[in-house]
Amino acid sequence: MKRTTFLLVMVVTLACVAGFTAIISRQAAAQEAAPIFVKKIPDGYRDWKVVSVAHEAGDLNDIRAVLGNDIAIKAYRDGKLPFPEGAIVGRIAWSHVASEENNKTFGREQSFVAGSPTDAYLQFMVKDSKKYAATGGWGYSSFDKDGKPTDEAAMKNCFPCHQAIKDRDFIFTKYAP
Amino acid sequence: MKRTTFLLVMVVTLACVAGFTAIISRQAAAQEAAPIFVKKIPDGYRDWKVVSVAHEAGDLNDIRAVLGNDIAIKAYRDGKLPFPEGAIVGRIAWSHVASEENNKTFGREQSFVAGSPTDAYLQFMVKDSKKYAATGGWGYSSFDKDGKPTDEAAMKNCFPCHQAIKDRDFIFTKYAP
Repeated sequence: MKRTTFLLVMVVTLACVAGFTAIISRQAAAQEAAPIFVKKIPDGYRDWKVVSVAHEAGDLNDIRAVLGNDIAIKAYRDGKLPFPEGAIVGRIAWSHVASEENNKTFGREQSFVAGSPTDAYLQFMVKDSKKYAATGGWGYSSFDKDGKPTDEAAMKNCFPCHQAIKDRDFIFTKYAP
Repeated sequence: MKRTTFLLVMVVTLACVAGFTAIISRQAAAQEAAPIFVKKIPDGYRDWKVVSVAHEAGDLNDIRAVLGNDIAIKAYRDGKLPFPEGAIVGRIAWSHVASEENNKTFGREQSFVAGSPTDAYLQFMVKDSKKYAATGGWGYSSFDKDGKPTDEAAMKNCFPCHQAIKDRDFIFTKYAP
């Protein structure tokens, strides 16, 4: 009887361990397969309305427009947070180049314009709370001047930085009047 | 007979002078009344598509978005010059301010964003070849942060500067990719 009990306990324990391991590995696989990064440039983004503009000096040396699809723009204008499902905020970055033509007309060196697309030309944040639950409900994407998505390794830096502004639903750019 | 002829010549001459004077003064009045400068902010400009972005350093110290209504954007994208009737190109200028929040996240001083509207917040060029024939077919307008039009005296500087780029139909800003 003692021996039978011992065997029974062993069998149940092993079954539990096996089951638990199976659950854990399924969860891990699901997490790995989760679409953290968006690999497709949203249609029609170049027609979107302006959220704001910015200039990154230093190594980036770009000038950028931040745009939003209609859902994002409405939320911005209504001051609604968090952004609703389907909102997309995008930014286009061009190299920040001095305009000789403008400077000549102004009579002084002061004018910088948008040059060619930068290495990190296009970036988008796509709101889908379920799909991108692991990264605050936003799917991140980044594309170079040829439309090639940025390496996944580099993309892992997006969410940790954006966590700094969790109270604004992870979106840095504020709407310009 | 001689006296009659003389009087007739005098009457005709005076009539001609009077008529000519009337024509000239009507022309002068028409020219003075010509709507060189536009005094109304175009409806819905904040929804327009992006032509490009720019940064004016120095005294202006602004960052700007150049937008176009649908007619202007189509012409830009089609590379069509001169711009068709009804085209409007606008620009919004915000103060160019360092973003402490962004700099903190980036870990370096590099980020500038759009601050409050500048003294020359909004400017538009409205294409109407007949109405604005005297200034290359474009009506110029400029408004401060409260929507007040800029003084006419200052507006007289618009067209002379834009004449530098007559071959691009007087529009400085090029379409950003």
